[in-house]
Amino acid sequence: MAFNEVFQYSIVSALMDGVASHGTPIARILEHGDHGLGTFRNMNGEMIVLDGDVYQMKADGSVVHINPAETVTPFATVTRFRPTTTTRATVIGKAGLEELLTGLFPKARNHFLVVRMDGVFHKVNVRTAGGQTTPREGMVDVCSRQTTHTFEGVKGTIVGFRCPQYVMGVNVAGDHFHFIAEDRQRGGHILAFETEGDVDISAAQMSKFRLELPTEDDEFNEAELKLQAQGIKAVAG
Amino acid sequence: MAFNEVFQYSIVSALMDGVASHGTPIARILEHGDHGLGTFRNMNGEMIVLDGDVYQMKADGSVVHINPAETVTPFATVTRFRPTTTTRATVIGKAGLEELLTGLFPKARNHFLVVRMDGVFHKVNVRTAGGQTTPREGMVDVCSRQTTHTFEGVKGTIVGFRCPQYVMGVNVAGDHFHFIAEDRQRGGHILAFETEGDVDISAAQMSKFRLELPTEDDEFNEAELKLQAQGIKAVAG
Repeated sequence: MAFNEVFQYSIVSALMDGVASHGTPIARILEHGDHGLGTFRNMNGEMIVLDGDVYQMKADGSVVHINPAETVTPFATVTRFRPTTTTRATVIGKAGLEELLTGLFPKARNHFLVVRMDGVFHKVNVRTAGGQTTPREGMVDVCSRQTTHTFEGVKGTIVGFRCPQYVMGVNVAGDHFHFIAEDRQRGGHILAFETEGDVDISAAQMSKFRLELPTEDDEFNEAELKLQAQGIKAVAG
Repeated sequence: MAFNEVFQYSIVSALMDGVASHGTPIARILEHGDHGLGTFRNMNGEMIVLDGDVYQMKADGSVVHINPAETVTPFATVTRFRPTTTTRATVIGKAGLEELLTGLFPKARNHFLVVRMDGVFHKVNVRTAGGQTTPREGMVDVCSRQTTHTFEGVKGTIVGFRCPQYVMGVNVAGDHFHFIAEDRQRGGHILAFETEGDVDISAAQMSKFRLELPTEDDEFNEAELKLQAQGIKAVAG
């Protein structure tokens, strides 16, 4: 696969509907990208893919370095990332990053963006999903029990995507970022953050999107997969 | 590209918003498939791709055999079709075909289907879009001036797709079929049809979807691309 093409396994609407019992080997995901986000079986934790390494950030605060051959994912989005734009900036919050990205890519309203930020963060507030308590439990219910952590003065990396509005339901429309600390001991799905001075930002615009759906998966086949735009915004944006 | 993978250029929401001044060479589309649907610059006519040949079915009733190197398309969906299921049946209308396909592919609710039907049709009622009168004129307005034709006792082929509900806006959710007569002189977007006795039906379920967005296209970049589900159902289903 070429650089800066989106590869996605399954769809966010399937997670909303609680389709998370099975998945595809993470090794297969890595054939399509070295940088991205996802989750694990039963929505147990947050996935970050960074330089081809895969980490599971769990609700108890621990981070596991994953063996891609031995673990499956019910949902992941990755790309083979090659930045086309790099800059340094102080970024205050998701709104600040949103504005910065829109400025860097003024013609990307209807395209995808991939982003990476490296540096020291004054504060990072994350959540980690603790997993389903029963099969088919939907993501809104899973996230109602999410654990949140706040890290201060932490060095680390943010990995994320911006998706155009028209893919809502297939993925998350808008911005979606995960964080992992440089020590690989802390991380999660970003709720809020502030950099400590300037950080390194690298990004690229993407116009090719490849989706692979679960097969031989009765849970996926039987799910209704209705568009739940409000729910997705609430738990995944 | 492997068999039975969906390849799509641009999105239906862009046509709804009147983004149809530019496009990609049809020769590039054919690299990804030999069977499918689409439209032409300014939504001038209906496209059918059949056994790798491309036809433009125009509002005046004429059909043009297209040179793929010399023509661009602002929207097309194709696959390299290899049927996995074949049958013969008498089919009465889109509702009859919907029921037949659901019976043939009981586990395809959240996947894509590709379909081909060959035989004699008692009646085929088609529409052909006559094209934009101004740039950015939206598809609902273009289709308000559509021409309809009814063919009776005509031998020909139906080509089409079924898309899952969650891609509404990206493509057309549900069934979408075009028809071309065996003499390649008549055809269009199917509004209604009835077979004359049994016809040959071939189809396949698809789980891989590849989307390529227009680049360097200000019309596409500037469009709002809001989801217009009702409008899409009205003009494209």
